[in-house]
Amino acid sequence: MSGRIGLLAGSFDPVTFGHLDIIRRASQLFDQLYVGIFFNRDKSGYFDVATRQKLLRASLQDLANVKVILAQDSLAVDIAQELGVTHLVRGLRNANDLAYEMELSFFNQQLAEDLETIFLLTAPQWQHVSSSRVRELIAFGADISPFVPQAVVRKVNECHEKKQTI
Amino acid sequence: MSGRIGLLAGSFDPVTFGHLDIIRRASQLFDQLYVGIFFNRDKSGYFDVATRQKLLRASLQDLANVKVILAQDSLAVDIAQELGVTHLVRGLRNANDLAYEMELSFFNQQLAEDLETIFLLTAPQWQHVSSSRVRELIAFGADISPFVPQAVVRKVNECHEKKQTI
Amino acid sequence: MSGRIGLLAGSFDPVTFGHLDIIRRASQLFDQLYVGIFFNRDKSGYFDVATRQKLLRASLQDLANVKVILAQDSLAVDIAQELGVTHLVRGLRNANDLAYEMELSFFNQQLAEDLETIFLLTAPQWQHVSSSRVRELIAFGADISPFVPQAVVRKVNECHEKKQTI
Amino acid sequence: MSGRIGLLAGSFDPVTFGHLDIIRRASQLFDQLYVGIFFNRDKSGYFDVATRQKLLRASLQDLANVKVILAQDSLAVDIAQELGVTHLVRGLRNANDLAYEMELSFFNQQLAEDLETIFLLTAPQWQHVSSSRVRELIAFGADISPFVPQAVVRKVNECHEKKQTI
Amino acid sequence: MSGRIGLLAGSFDPVTFGHLDIIRRASQLFDQLYVGIFFNRDKSGYFDVATRQKLLRASLQDLANVKVILAQDSLAVDIAQELGVTHLVRGLRNANDLAYEMELSFFNQQLAEDLETIFLLTAPQWQHVSSSRVRELIAFGADISPFVPQAVVRKVNECHEKKQTI
Amino acid sequence: MSGRIGLLAGSFDPVTFGHLDIIRRASQLFDQLYVGIFFNRDKSGYFDVATRQKLLRASLQDLANVKVILAQDSLAVDIAQELGVTHLVRGLRNANDLAYEMELSFFNQQLAEDLETIFLLTAPQWQHVSSSRVRELIAFGADISPFVPQAVVRKVNECHEKKQTI
Repeated sequence: MSGRIGLLAGSFDPVTFGHLDIIRRASQLFDQLYVGIFFNRDKSGYFDVATRQKLLRASLQDLANVKVILAQDSLAVDIAQELGVTHLVRGLRNANDLAYEMELSFFNQQLAEDLETIFLLTAPQWQHVSSSRVRELIAFGADISPFVPQAVVRKVNECHEKKQTI
Repeated sequence: MSGRIGLLAGSFDPVTFGHLDIIRRASQLFDQLYVGIFFNRDKSGYFDVATRQKLLRASLQDLANVKVILAQDSLAVDIAQELGVTHLVRGLRNANDLAYEMELSFFNQQLAEDLETIFLLTAPQWQHVSSSRVRELIAFGADISPFVPQAVVRKVNECHEKKQTI
Repeated sequence: MSGRIGLLAGSFDPVTFGHLDIIRRASQLFDQLYVGIFFNRDKSGYFDVATRQKLLRASLQDLANVKVILAQDSLAVDIAQELGVTHLVRGLRNANDLAYEMELSFFNQQLAEDLETIFLLTAPQWQHVSSSRVRELIAFGADISPFVPQAVVRKVNECHEKKQTI
Repeated sequence: MSGRIGLLAGSFDPVTFGHLDIIRRASQLFDQLYVGIFFNRDKSGYFDVATRQKLLRASLQDLANVKVILAQDSLAVDIAQELGVTHLVRGLRNANDLAYEMELSFFNQQLAEDLETIFLLTAPQWQHVSSSRVRELIAFGADISPFVPQAVVRKVNECHEKKQTI
Repeated sequence: MSGRIGLLAGSFDPVTFGHLDIIRRASQLFDQLYVGIFFNRDKSGYFDVATRQKLLRASLQDLANVKVILAQDSLAVDIAQELGVTHLVRGLRNANDLAYEMELSFFNQQLAEDLETIFLLTAPQWQHVSSSRVRELIAFGADISPFVPQAVVRKVNECHEKKQTI
Repeated sequence: MSGRIGLLAGSFDPVTFGHLDIIRRASQLFDQLYVGIFFNRDKSGYFDVATRQKLLRASLQDLANVKVILAQDSLAVDIAQELGVTHLVRGLRNANDLAYEMELSFFNQQLAEDLETIFLLTAPQWQHVSSSRVRELIAFGADISPFVPQAVVRKVNECHEKKQTI
């Protein structure tokens, strides 16, 4: 049986412990796992794409078969086909996620019939953690260290200090 | 990376096209996929276990890396550990399934920390097909051929004819 | 356009104000509306079928285009085809109902392609009222008069008095 | 019994095969079915209203009792009362839809007590198809022909060619 | 046992009968209940904060142990700790609410371990009433008097008359 | 303000860490909290009622304002009224729970208008733990010590040893 190659697409703005758990677990299922930061030219995120990539790479350096890539204005299925990906990987947090995932999966199937999607359940302790909630905590100046790697905490503190200096 | 071995547990009473679709797709993810017919001594099903096994095997003979096994009064995690299984496989049909699967997954994690579970979404055309619904259709004498392999249809017809002869 | 004929199937064990509201509203959509008491020979209900029918008829006598029928060990689609029904009617109480209804509707479509199903939302004040909950209240001797027609209350009281006499 | 008149309100930006399926099935239930393109002066859509109307009409010309209308900055209940509509018609795709529909239905009932709402289940094959998802596919240059009538595909291609000429 | 102090946070833009019902019922559980209008400097609402506060106070004057406060750009947990609050209070309308509340509750627990959250179910008659839906009705000029206190209706009429005079 | 008295009803067959967490947290909200073991004469549980009571009491002895009571063939509202209870207490685990709780709450309101119900969210770590799942684990001989107090584990071991001796 030839190689199994996975792709986990997201915006990772910023990476959370929830993402890292899914990536680590998915990496054991594939010979190669791509983690794709998908972004649109017109929609700027909270962290710029280069920063997201740096933070993600710093957190994943011990996983030899995982590679972080960037994808601008692209559909996951198109990137998957370029890279010879056999399986898309998705994390599932709850029933609301599922409705969205079923719709996405339907369209991906229409667009790329042979591309399979597999799902991993988010670990209970990260079930409620999302990048958007982390960004909200940052806006209120709350402590995000239980939810994201230290590299993200440091980056946020840097930005905060810069603002205060000015 | 050493072999990935999957286990899909169910009662398969009887096997449906939904099961076969999940099995075929899962078989591409693993070096070896076990399909386990789990049953309890005290709860008899609609078809006896030997028949379920025969019907399942007949439907899977073209999948070289799939093996049908029986498991009586056992937890999936225990069988998984005996067989060196690395991943449990589950089909997901809808949000109601998910609530149950999250609970099951939590307990499996407690009982066997290193055993991972992956989920595949049931294909839309089989989303509403379940063994219990098929058994209900059989009870009302309705046509089940759109939902199950021919071997099951033939088996049901045989049983029906025997009853009428008597 | 020829006549539109509806069928509302249920067990009506016993009829509730929720049922009556759906029936009254559905009756305005059809030239003829059948209300079918579906039952299985092997599963006895709380009220016997003749009683259920009597209670239902008593509650519907002012609706000229509604007819109560009995259906034993039958699928709704089969009765529908016998009666020339054009539309099945279902009441929807909540999201849990919907998952079940989507499955049922899928199978009905497979079994009788031209038979359409329409849904009415249960009125908010009857949203939580179900026959099974009413039976539970009866078992605890609680007051059911806010949820069912007077004929049902009287019937329950009769049974209760008979028991106490004995 | 006097005429039954239905109204299906939506933004149809653009019309999909899901819409057409619901409209065709609903048309068999009413003597006259209005399909209303509801829009707000302040919120421009992807297609302008005249285009949406043209695309919708082109797709419905074989349904003699269906009429496409426009409604600006209006509530469906108000248009319904102007037109003598007896029933609002809604398509239901999943449990998430239902929560929204229950809320909408509650308010419509408050605003127009005698106006009934009936629901049709989206056919399984169109369950995941929505105008918003189609617009997303257009943005990524993906093929939309499995989800919308040819007239929409042609319109999108025209717009695309114009852009490229410029 | 020392005093129990509750905090119900919201935007109350505007206050509805649903809010008032929850507040009245919660007030019976606490020695002191704070009702906090939480707002962000950057996001203006429909009614300005002073108006919301006035409308809320007018509706609550008969509840001696309830106090309306303002909280700008703050997390509920931080305000709670300043005020010595022992319990956050939340109204629950439906399953969709619950998913959000579980996430919120998780983060609040992380941020303030000893702060407990209790939930009250919205009364069935207010289950579908929300401030956002009321604002939508105002935009369409529909009658909001079944859903909000008279003070809100009067305020909306005033604004409307001013606009028409100009 | 006079005393607040709570009642948490359940079958506690057996008590789990999830129950204990809810009871401990609820006890801080009430002057007196009753924990009621509700059972039906006709439905025997896994543990007999005396054992359930003993196990529950052993786990709650440090909570001075909590009292364990038994209630046979009774509705919670009736017991509540006998005991002067002001609030029913319920633990909420997930959205499926909520649908059931909304129905129950509706009926309780009908039967005892002044009796309020409050809800506490099950702590994330106990979210998937239920008595029925624990009984299932016991049936498979799996380790239940992460989910229930030691007294329950000991009781199960005793029963197991007795069986093996025989």
